[in-house]
Amino acid sequence: MPLAPILVVTTGGTIDKQYFDALSEYQIAESVIEKLLRVSRVAHPFRVVELMRKDSLELTGEDRALIKAAIAAAPETRVVVTHGTDTMTETAKVLAAIPGKTIVLVGALAPARFAESDAPFNLGMAFACCQAASPGVWITMNGSVFDGLKVRKDREAGKFAEI
Amino acid sequence: MPLAPILVVTTGGTIDKQYFDALSEYQIAESVIEKLLRVSRVAHPFRVVELMRKDSLELTGEDRALIKAAIAAAPETRVVVTHGTDTMTETAKVLAAIPGKTIVLVGALAPARFAESDAPFNLGMAFACCQAASPGVWITMNGSVFDGLKVRKDREAGKFAEI
Amino acid sequence: MPLAPILVVTTGGTIDKQYFDALSEYQIAESVIEKLLRVSRVAHPFRVVELMRKDSLELTGEDRALIKAAIAAAPETRVVVTHGTDTMTETAKVLAAIPGKTIVLVGALAPARFAESDAPFNLGMAFACCQAASPGVWITMNGSVFDGLKVRKDREAGKFAEI
Amino acid sequence: MPLAPILVVTTGGTIDKQYFDALSEYQIAESVIEKLLRVSRVAHPFRVVELMRKDSLELTGEDRALIKAAIAAAPETRVVVTHGTDTMTETAKVLAAIPGKTIVLVGALAPARFAESDAPFNLGMAFACCQAASPGVWITMNGSVFDGLKVRKDREAGKFAEI
Repeated sequence: MPLAPILVVTTGGTIDKQYFDALSEYQIAESVIEKLLRVSRVAHPFRVVELMRKDSLELTGEDRALIKAAIAAAPETRVVVTHGTDTMTETAKVLAAIPGKTIVLVGALAPARFAESDAPFNLGMAFACCQAASPGVWITMNGSVFDGLKVRKDREAGKFAEI
Repeated sequence: MPLAPILVVTTGGTIDKQYFDALSEYQIAESVIEKLLRVSRVAHPFRVVELMRKDSLELTGEDRALIKAAIAAAPETRVVVTHGTDTMTETAKVLAAIPGKTIVLVGALAPARFAESDAPFNLGMAFACCQAASPGVWITMNGSVFDGLKVRKDREAGKFAEI
Repeated sequence: MPLAPILVVTTGGTIDKQYFDALSEYQIAESVIEKLLRVSRVAHPFRVVELMRKDSLELTGEDRALIKAAIAAAPETRVVVTHGTDTMTETAKVLAAIPGKTIVLVGALAPARFAESDAPFNLGMAFACCQAASPGVWITMNGSVFDGLKVRKDREAGKFAEI
Repeated sequence: MPLAPILVVTTGGTIDKQYFDALSEYQIAESVIEKLLRVSRVAHPFRVVELMRKDSLELTGEDRALIKAAIAAAPETRVVVTHGTDTMTETAKVLAAIPGKTIVLVGALAPARFAESDAPFNLGMAFACCQAASPGVWITMNGSVFDGLKVRKDREAGKFAEI
């Protein structure tokens, strides 16, 4: 039985933040997802679509509609969405309207380019969750698989928790 | 609803290999799993049991019986076992006899102490799989969630593949 | 002959920048210099003084006077100063007035907390330079030992070059 | 005044050790020196010659004669030699016969491919030392610039110390 291919949609967020010395600031840069999957020796079939490069606080309703349309139109039924953490749960609500697909939203609290980041672990969770979980929207952060409609980010504590 | 706690059993393998200059060789060392979970900002309840530190080629039938007994006796129903990759599928067969628990075997092709290792991604997969998959034995390597009884390691290709 | 102890003065700069998720921005954080020296297995006697945590564009004349006074008053004759790169050469001019000490200014173009950073290499250069070079002010960046009074930062090119 | 170019001769040693899963062991692999210099944003002119890939316990008199000949014949007067640490001081004695060049021997106690390695710091020390020190043979390990003829490796302590 062939392995079900995974669609990875990148939208930006902390996970892809890079530091630019010439600007003395960091910005969301070229996604590191493909490199991270190569380092992680992923042999599972996947396809990466870099849809946008935004801080999730800047995502508009139109952006979310675009993310939804891109996923709905794709042939894959297993989907990972990398996303800023601050409004991840808002996007989860929009994506919940897509039937028959297992969609996992994931991000990072420290940029993937850091030596110590939660990005590779979180992305691994998302890859497994989209294969093992039933259709619906899920969020994999802080070591937990959360129902995407029953979770919130506790910004002070710096972690996600069930509602 | 409280999150279901996860038991992490470490048995050794490449994932925990450290380099010892005084010996001019590397050996399996103190497990890096707890540090890796801390860096990954895991807030999910878990408990780590360092059961043994062996290359999986050295694991005996008695070792496997011990791993099985430790898991069967534990209160947790979600279990991650870090393990050398060469005989991971043999241990999977032994653990398949445990009813009512979701057990995930996981390891790494490059030591977790390497700057570029598949360890954090793989461990993330295992954490998600033991939460999202139904009871049974699973292996999460190379980006795939494999049925633990229907997978083999292709040593030359350096990856796991379905049987 | 006992090894000459080294004074390390930290002033901030990109080298110590950390990312803070709760703020969605990064700031200069607790210095990573001591950890970096431990990872680098430094057995040479040294002492770290965290003098300030500033972006070098924010350093005032008073700040520079303080850095100068702290170095002049210290018993060590070998000194490493970690510093933001944008105004490193201005501080070099101020420190040039201190006689009889080998002072090396050093920083990084990517934060030390990044997986790929010039910080450990640059700091190693500074440690060697303050031991091997004659008294005066030096800058060790981009693989070169520069006379601190004959170098400038080429911001567009992202590197230091001789005047 | 143009910057004096640096010759980097690699001979093997722990610094270049890689882990090979298919063999369940590690071996000295393709040198990581060039990658490390790129990550460290080295703009100083340099040239890397991969002369051999040996554990320094396996180096013969002929190997040392070859290293000496390669350095003596090169146009550069600033030379860095990456080398296993166990017999680094023996090679230092052989290279001391080369007049008019500043030669720095350097290695690592943990492989450069490890997330926590002394390799980048040590290599930075060597780069600075070959520019700032007078002609002769030097060893840069454990944060110190050692006279290459007045140092020994304390294997149990895992560090170099003056004789």
